[in-house]
Amino acid sequence: MSRTLLTNIGWITTPHAPGKNRPLYKLDQPDADTILLEDETIHWIGKAADLPGGTDARIIDLQGRGVTPGLIDFHAHPVFAATREAEFQLRTAGASYADIAAAGGGIINSTKKVAVASEQELVNHARPFLDNALTHGTTTLEAKSGYGLTVEGELKLLRAIRALGNDHPLDLVPTFLGAHEYPLEYRDDHEAYIKILIKEMIPKVVEEGLAEACDIFCETGVYSVEEARRILTIAREHGLKLKVHADQLTPLGGSKLAAELGALSADHIEYLDDEGIEAMADAGTVAGLLPVAAHFLRMKEDPPVRNLIERGVVCALATDFNPGSAMCENMQMAIHLAAIRFRVSAEEALWMATAGSAAGLGITDRGYLAPGGLADIAVWNTPSFEMIPYHFGINQVVGVFKRGTLVVQEGRRVG
Amino acid sequence: MSRTLLTNIGWITTPHAPGKNRPLYKLDQPDADTILLEDETIHWIGKAADLPGGTDARIIDLQGRGVTPGLIDFHAHPVFAATREAEFQLRTAGASYADIAAAGGGIINSTKKVAVASEQELVNHARPFLDNALTHGTTTLEAKSGYGLTVEGELKLLRAIRALGNDHPLDLVPTFLGAHEYPLEYRDDHEAYIKILIKEMIPKVVEEGLAEACDIFCETGVYSVEEARRILTIAREHGLKLKVHADQLTPLGGSKLAAELGALSADHIEYLDDEGIEAMADAGTVAGLLPVAAHFLRMKEDPPVRNLIERGVVCALATDFNPGSAMCENMQMAIHLAAIRFRVSAEEALWMATAGSAAGLGITDRGYLAPGGLADIAVWNTPSFEMIPYHFGINQVVGVFKRGTLVVQEGRRVG
Repeated sequence: MSRTLLTNIGWITTPHAPGKNRPLYKLDQPDADTILLEDETIHWIGKAADLPGGTDARIIDLQGRGVTPGLIDFHAHPVFAATREAEFQLRTAGASYADIAAAGGGIINSTKKVAVASEQELVNHARPFLDNALTHGTTTLEAKSGYGLTVEGELKLLRAIRALGNDHPLDLVPTFLGAHEYPLEYRDDHEAYIKILIKEMIPKVVEEGLAEACDIFCETGVYSVEEARRILTIAREHGLKLKVHADQLTPLGGSKLAAELGALSADHIEYLDDEGIEAMADAGTVAGLLPVAAHFLRMKEDPPVRNLIERGVVCALATDFNPGSAMCENMQMAIHLAAIRFRVSAEEALWMATAGSAAGLGITDRGYLAPGGLADIAVWNTPSFEMIPYHFGINQVVGVFKRGTLVVQEGRRVG
Repeated sequence: MSRTLLTNIGWITTPHAPGKNRPLYKLDQPDADTILLEDETIHWIGKAADLPGGTDARIIDLQGRGVTPGLIDFHAHPVFAATREAEFQLRTAGASYADIAAAGGGIINSTKKVAVASEQELVNHARPFLDNALTHGTTTLEAKSGYGLTVEGELKLLRAIRALGNDHPLDLVPTFLGAHEYPLEYRDDHEAYIKILIKEMIPKVVEEGLAEACDIFCETGVYSVEEARRILTIAREHGLKLKVHADQLTPLGGSKLAAELGALSADHIEYLDDEGIEAMADAGTVAGLLPVAAHFLRMKEDPPVRNLIERGVVCALATDFNPGSAMCENMQMAIHLAAIRFRVSAEEALWMATAGSAAGLGITDRGYLAPGGLADIAVWNTPSFEMIPYHFGINQVVGVFKRGTLVVQEGRRVG
């Protein structure tokens, strides 16, 4: 058994551990300066003077720095073959999403690059982004496929995600997103691609154990609510959890569908209406807030965050990291932009980026600091967590422990 | 003489050197992979094969990374005694500028903290921010006073700026901003404070050689155009260059005043009108664009950037780093936000952040890479400069040379 003792902690700020009376959006600041890790989990939190005696722990002096749970980026597309800075330039100059798609851009642009990349090339391309996520405090990252849109392409992406997860300190949570778009050749024959999705892709993904969840882009001009219901129902029958890109560009009703099907979350939700909020609240569907994409796309509409919070819906925060609409893998920026765009407080944002995001992934072993929880810890070079959204554009994380191991020290990967 | 040879440069992107036919907003990409530095300046740029023989230079292999001129942050307030994250929280919750001022916040909040801080405390507080600016590619930084608003306070701030400049690789360009606000006790007696400004502060600042320029916040409820004209005229008589915080919150006419008085720049200019643009174009006044503040304050109005560019006005880009309205010392974020908010292209933004900002400071020895220019160089971990606005929230600068010396390596301060 390996023991590590974190001493001289300046402050500890964390959501309460999951449980019956866990308050939503409230953080706990325990009167403690010491944390004892045992292997991959937290064993004890308290004052140094009360430390149980006789441990042979390795001591790491945090010199007054603060700690929070490691950040959880529960919605991201980190595996692709090429960046798309030329499209960013077109969009800056005024081109619309439709203009860019017409010029061969968008998701289809990425699928062309993925088609000719090897699994190893995809791994190599993604690794620096994962390193950046980790050094900025992320300890768990969802990773979607969706830039393949062929059986081979989707499997290649998911195998690359598995290889990355085996090789990197970050926990990667793989999601199958074969329904990210319709490939060009199926734009007039949705039925044929849906057949590939449900008869070939989903069974193969499940057989190889390559994904925990199935996601879909339910949007006007992409997957209709009816199409999404069919595909997600099959995915659920195969044992996959469900997620929905919902109501981002139009109020199509993807969020209600997510609630109806018992999906983990409905994400984006810029155009979520009151009926959708009620459905999500009743079903316990998590609301996935993606302020980086809203910022990057210069969205006019923002999600009804205050209504969601007041209605008791659990909101989760993520980067939506992807080369088309959110080229940022830093969760601190998601927290900052949640404050600026969505008027989310520092307390709410940190809660959403830890406890909320764990809920969005359907996991309860992380997203808080308490005995028994995973020892996923971000170490901050700030006098309090209130600095996180306020002082932006620089990395405020200096250290990271992942499953009890020090993996980032003085802002750089170690170990 | 000290010689350093930078080899294996992947790409070089730079504004053209100053001169009669220097094209505005155009970057040069010389067919070169090698730069020879001699002491503090650039001696030669070319292909390795054409290198003049017989140098005894220290060789630094850049391993395919790209270079641009060091970034110039020509408008910043980096010296203060305390951060103001509580005000950020109030603003996130919906409080207005006026609400915050009424609650004892805003600039007056900072003056109270500066009043009780020592010069050394101010130096110590600012140093980490300067380190961050440097590691993110800034090599020249303007530093304003303005959180003193007393003779002693303003001198203390400017002396702290001088001490920081002597002690830090960054070149600091000091600006006197005693007219940042009216102190509370002079709100009903402007004349008395103006007298202190022009009879005491300005002469003492000039006598001690503590500032190169005098700035003023010309805004409804703060300094009127008439008051600003009086104060700036006296400053000019004392040999100070002039700058104006102009037309940020209301179209008061500060930009026209800047043009009238031959000021270096009119900054913010969210409410700049056509008449102001014409006046600035005719006078050669630089337009100071501060997208970080516009973002942080959730401004509804943005400056007329396309009109300025079309009219041939030189635009400069800066962070406006300060604890109240722009808590970000990273010029890469200014470039990103200029793209997102002001629809400035990557080429325009890099030009503004180097050549434009040098013009905003009235200096011609930097802001470009060419023989004879200062060897202030940012080294980028990107395949091209187009990545700078696109991939945001992480530090894309890995190395910095300041006056010929390597001061940032692998993202960290060295030397």
